[in-house]
Amino acid sequence: MATINENYLNLQGSYLFQTVARKVREFEAGNPDARLIKLGIGDVTQPIAPAILNAMHKAVDEMGAANTFHGYAPDLGYEFLRTAIVENEYRKRGIDIEPDEIFVSDGAKSDCSNIQEIFDQNNLVAVCDPVYPVYVDSNVMAGRSGAFNEEKKLYSNLIYMPCTESNGFIPDFPKINPDLIYLCFPNNPTGVAITKERLQAWVDYALKIGAVILYDAAYEAYISDDTLPHSIFECSGAEYCAIEFRSFSKNAGFTGLRLGFTVISKKLKLSGKSVHAMWARRHGTKYNGAPYIIQRAGEAVYSPEGNQQINAQIATYMKNAQFLKTALKDAGYTVYGGENAPYIWLKTPNGLSSWDFFDLLLNKAGIVGTPGSGFGPNGEGFFRLTAFGTYENSVEAIERIKGL
Amino acid sequence: MATINENYLNLQGSYLFQTVARKVREFEAGNPDARLIKLGIGDVTQPIAPAILNAMHKAVDEMGAANTFHGYAPDLGYEFLRTAIVENEYRKRGIDIEPDEIFVSDGAKSDCSNIQEIFDQNNLVAVCDPVYPVYVDSNVMAGRSGAFNEEKKLYSNLIYMPCTESNGFIPDFPKINPDLIYLCFPNNPTGVAITKERLQAWVDYALKIGAVILYDAAYEAYISDDTLPHSIFECSGAEYCAIEFRSFSKNAGFTGLRLGFTVISKKLKLSGKSVHAMWARRHGTKYNGAPYIIQRAGEAVYSPEGNQQINAQIATYMKNAQFLKTALKDAGYTVYGGENAPYIWLKTPNGLSSWDFFDLLLNKAGIVGTPGSGFGPNGEGFFRLTAFGTYENSVEAIERIKGL
Repeated sequence: MATINENYLNLQGSYLFQTVARKVREFEAGNPDARLIKLGIGDVTQPIAPAILNAMHKAVDEMGAANTFHGYAPDLGYEFLRTAIVENEYRKRGIDIEPDEIFVSDGAKSDCSNIQEIFDQNNLVAVCDPVYPVYVDSNVMAGRSGAFNEEKKLYSNLIYMPCTESNGFIPDFPKINPDLIYLCFPNNPTGVAITKERLQAWVDYALKIGAVILYDAAYEAYISDDTLPHSIFECSGAEYCAIEFRSFSKNAGFTGLRLGFTVISKKLKLSGKSVHAMWARRHGTKYNGAPYIIQRAGEAVYSPEGNQQINAQIATYMKNAQFLKTALKDAGYTVYGGENAPYIWLKTPNGLSSWDFFDLLLNKAGIVGTPGSGFGPNGEGFFRLTAFGTYENSVEAIERIKGL
Repeated sequence: MATINENYLNLQGSYLFQTVARKVREFEAGNPDARLIKLGIGDVTQPIAPAILNAMHKAVDEMGAANTFHGYAPDLGYEFLRTAIVENEYRKRGIDIEPDEIFVSDGAKSDCSNIQEIFDQNNLVAVCDPVYPVYVDSNVMAGRSGAFNEEKKLYSNLIYMPCTESNGFIPDFPKINPDLIYLCFPNNPTGVAITKERLQAWVDYALKIGAVILYDAAYEAYISDDTLPHSIFECSGAEYCAIEFRSFSKNAGFTGLRLGFTVISKKLKLSGKSVHAMWARRHGTKYNGAPYIIQRAGEAVYSPEGNQQINAQIATYMKNAQFLKTALKDAGYTVYGGENAPYIWLKTPNGLSSWDFFDLLLNKAGIVGTPGSGFGPNGEGFFRLTAFGTYENSVEAIERIKGL
């Protein structure tokens, strides 16, 4: 008799953003005239840049002629895209990554959640708290989490690394040595970036204990401080202990186009086995590539016009971030992030719980944010706003918040 | 210390089509002037139909304006596509499937390989022999296969259901009751279709023993015999025991666009748990949707023009299939399939092994096919040709084969 994967029974409630979406739908059903300002889910709002649109139109046309039609893509992704990525994201920063160390995919969410498959079931996983829920939930599904402790709001077999005001939201090394360490900088949800020195310390730590760092750099394009690392491979030795995830969603607005990539150096080995070869096998067996049209869109991100256009988009979002941060501070809020990331991490006022503040903002101000506690117990009492709205909406949101 | 998923060490060689691709690359490197005819991998060759191109151009333009831009897609896929699928694939055939029982994805390969995640590790898996390697390899990676028996060329913990000339390539019920049963009809690689009566017997069997049938219907568009089932949900009770996988790759040439869907009835429950809810959770947590542009392309497949255009494409491929089958028979080959599927399954001549015949065809005739043994021990002595070439190439392939 077929039976289910009982690890799923350990999952807590719905995926955070599904719960937020449900609450929003319910509010909209009851308040059809309300004009909601959505600063919750990290979705972009600016349209795809013209250079990228042109590339997609051209690729669509290619798909319509037999001599330029493209069927199944190469397993790792098209070489034109992998070469553009290597040149622009790595070699320009002096990082030695080869095109065949790039695995093109439909996005960092898929890769971040699938990567755990190639590691042993008994690997001990460390995550930040608060944390992007996908790292945790994918390991719950895989059976690495143990039972959920209702009181502590934590899984018994995961290592949580508190990211709090007192440590500046940069985790300390855990007391027990983990095998797999998820790090995300600039961070979602706190919006805090890590210095190269601190990241190097994590790489040194991982090398010392034989751990692998799963490094989510989806927000690197928002780094404004030139001294901060865009890639973990800027750190010495990272090629022997780290896997990096990148996304086109946040730098070029590809949330609805779906494109990302994972970088694994061929030097990364565990017990003599190539982790690169394992992921290549997984990628080739369980996935069939990102659409040709979308890979051409990704290539256009690196064209001179595309690059200029997406930089202008990022500047717009960061103008929002700066405005939100300054205005909230002026209004008496304690605010983090928003300088090298599109996320504002604010302390809820009057000791409100994160979900109470969510409900308050939704029902009294028509603003959708994301409750910090949805990212973990140390997110309780915090709230995430994104800079992905329009400037006008960001301004209006502040007016509404001031009027609470 | 991080350790690998050792189940990967049980994987045998490379994924079949990667090996074929490597041999082809090597041949081309050594024979730069040879004009290869590729009838191996099941990739299409006709360009995307005009109605679908138009839909994509329109969708690209929508992505370029703020008021029509689409970011993250709804978890299950856009309703416009799910509704079109339900209307055209199910309700027109009198099948009661709801739009929220459709999960839109980037293709059947991803879904077929990911679906096993929601079932218990100890579920006993039955596959046909020969079989599309993805069903096997995804279960090897998940640890359900046991060790590979080098002598038998089979995994010790999988149930293999022989599909041979003597049973007309339709498997008999296995001697030991499986928990998960992978079936694919019209079949890849044999090209053989199943009757409604035989499929109903499989549904009845699954209901009796409490198994779940994982039904890959990627090739249903090639069915020419009106009495044959296009969907397992044409069988009574299938909603309680079956999951169906569908693809836009073969009916509409989307191999390079990437779109498919999985159908799970909300009536399918195991130990009282909704399998639909589990897959919804998996889909929402570890995947972020097919691109908006591609979902619009899928919708256009069901427009009157789109439908007419893809039917013409299918007719072209089936003309190839019929030609190949007839010509090979005339040349003295024993040939199966090719009537309700785009695959020709032929017996190798003179008792050649499948790979020897592959090498012979590649080196002496410049034709790429797929060795039957790559699909399992009962594929030994067989060879798969696809009808996805052009008619001219199919004709030339036959001339070359005759000249061997």
